[in-house]
Amino acid sequence: MADVARRADVSIKTVSRVVNDEPGVRPQTASKVRAIIEELGFHRHEGASMLRKGRSTSIGLIVEDLGNPWYSQLAASMEREARSRNHFLISTSAEGSPEREAELVDALVARRVEGLVVVPASSDASEAIRSAAEEMPVVCVDRPLAGLVADTVLSDNEGGVRSAVEHLVAHRHRRIGFLGDDEVIWTAQRRQAAFLASYDLLGLPGEPLTRLGPYADGEVAALLDRWGQGRDGITAVITSNNRVTMQVIAAQRVCGLDLVVVGYDDFELADFLEPPVTCVHQDPASLGERAIQQLFARLDGELGDPRTHVIPTRLIVRGSARRRPASRRA
Amino acid sequence: MADVARRADVSIKTVSRVVNDEPGVRPQTASKVRAIIEELGFHRHEGASMLRKGRSTSIGLIVEDLGNPWYSQLAASMEREARSRNHFLISTSAEGSPEREAELVDALVARRVEGLVVVPASSDASEAIRSAAEEMPVVCVDRPLAGLVADTVLSDNEGGVRSAVEHLVAHRHRRIGFLGDDEVIWTAQRRQAAFLASYDLLGLPGEPLTRLGPYADGEVAALLDRWGQGRDGITAVITSNNRVTMQVIAAQRVCGLDLVVVGYDDFELADFLEPPVTCVHQDPASLGERAIQQLFARLDGELGDPRTHVIPTRLIVRGSARRRPASRRA
Repeated sequence: MADVARRADVSIKTVSRVVNDEPGVRPQTASKVRAIIEELGFHRHEGASMLRKGRSTSIGLIVEDLGNPWYSQLAASMEREARSRNHFLISTSAEGSPEREAELVDALVARRVEGLVVVPASSDASEAIRSAAEEMPVVCVDRPLAGLVADTVLSDNEGGVRSAVEHLVAHRHRRIGFLGDDEVIWTAQRRQAAFLASYDLLGLPGEPLTRLGPYADGEVAALLDRWGQGRDGITAVITSNNRVTMQVIAAQRVCGLDLVVVGYDDFELADFLEPPVTCVHQDPASLGERAIQQLFARLDGELGDPRTHVIPTRLIVRGSARRRPASRRA
Repeated sequence: MADVARRADVSIKTVSRVVNDEPGVRPQTASKVRAIIEELGFHRHEGASMLRKGRSTSIGLIVEDLGNPWYSQLAASMEREARSRNHFLISTSAEGSPEREAELVDALVARRVEGLVVVPASSDASEAIRSAAEEMPVVCVDRPLAGLVADTVLSDNEGGVRSAVEHLVAHRHRRIGFLGDDEVIWTAQRRQAAFLASYDLLGLPGEPLTRLGPYADGEVAALLDRWGQGRDGITAVITSNNRVTMQVIAAQRVCGLDLVVVGYDDFELADFLEPPVTCVHQDPASLGERAIQQLFARLDGELGDPRTHVIPTRLIVRGSARRRPASRRA
């Protein structure tokens, strides 16, 4: 555009007016500008705009697995929000691999995205992501990154787990287990810590029973079966995400266990299981919206220290705790 | 690039050699070319490559709603397949609106994607999509487009519905209803037609009871309740997709109906409902893979008439039909 203006000996504003069919340009000036545009093969398409600005108008998203409903809701809400600002979202799956994530970061940066939203595959920032953050805004979602100063959007892990424990205790459960996802996942660690803190604070009896994955085939069933034995056996279990909830539900069917389950993450059909499953709803759509809004705030020139947004959770009580109170078993 | 060549009074090949640091260019010519490149702000990044080739290395995908697990599985498999060919997938949701779809097509074309995969929002090809198809390969998934000559990947709707009807009949159901999604959706119409054909072919008694949506609040429950009345009442119902299956399951809970449900589309937890739900599994991942493979075949130069791929379905029997055979009610 500057080149066209120089050649036509007019201001950039004038070129812009011609391109956008705005008034205020004399006909012969407009013709001249158009001829030069024609000559230079300048088209008003995104490619040209990208070269001018050195940026495309897309945002890159890296999650673990787009096929997982939690991530697809996150991506769908981000896509909607980005679109309302005329940006496309390029969504990719790192499949839990830090190496794959680094490759994707590099490829998206080469692709000139305007910014990156990442659900980190590991707790330490890779070289790729640190170098990306020097060129463009990066927002972490669901998990923070050590070694990277970046805006971060998290679920209220402490509040969510505490609401689950308090709900069960209010319904007279005293022995409650906790099963988390893979131990390398930050939220699994964090929710386990929140569980232990609540257990302590409420003065629940005995050693708290917790485990993080990964789990071998049949391991969840065996574990729950063991934890449920005897007078001191657990009567309820809290999970750290929907993947573990599914494993617990499957384990219960296989072994005929009779435990109350409270799942972190809500899921479709939680209402229709027998008994219905109470869930900590953490609203992936809100996390996605907040992340992309924060990204656009930086693109719009927001300065200052990185922000951490904590999105509240909501306990959706489906009556599962009331159905089989601990008192019946004690 | 042509502009640089013109200004430097050299061939385009020479400019290309300079840009790519290839031998065979005299030092002073190279300096001159570099100076002009500098002046024009031409950088050897994707934007430049995009302008040169008029193409980026991404594929556009337009579905109804990325938040729906069926579509997110489709998108996830396509992203994986595209990535293995070094392409990004730009996934977007048209939210069932043909106008929104046309906007997205235009925006993706302006964004210079190499090809488009579309789950069409209406049965007639828009001007936008027809004009896109002149510039790049377009593949339709799940639904064909009238007025567009394009490769198409479909589920085996006839085979899928027939397997559901035959399964129920084999378990002594004689009166079976059919509930489809919104009547504007091609697969809803097609699966209804397949249902009627199977009903006829198997010589089932009475008028077949079928309906397509959209449904008002409580309408599905009222309808099933009416269809289930009397000696000739239905004992089973087949749905046209997972959205309707969820409505039927909810309606059954609300009204205490006792019908066997066979759902088109498999869904997570179908195993864990009581009774478990038999489903026609149509494998969105296979549809997505086939679509993107077909798209790349065209990009690789495949000529010839458009192809229609039909992906087989598989009936996943979960014992729901056996639990409450029609004979008990007759």
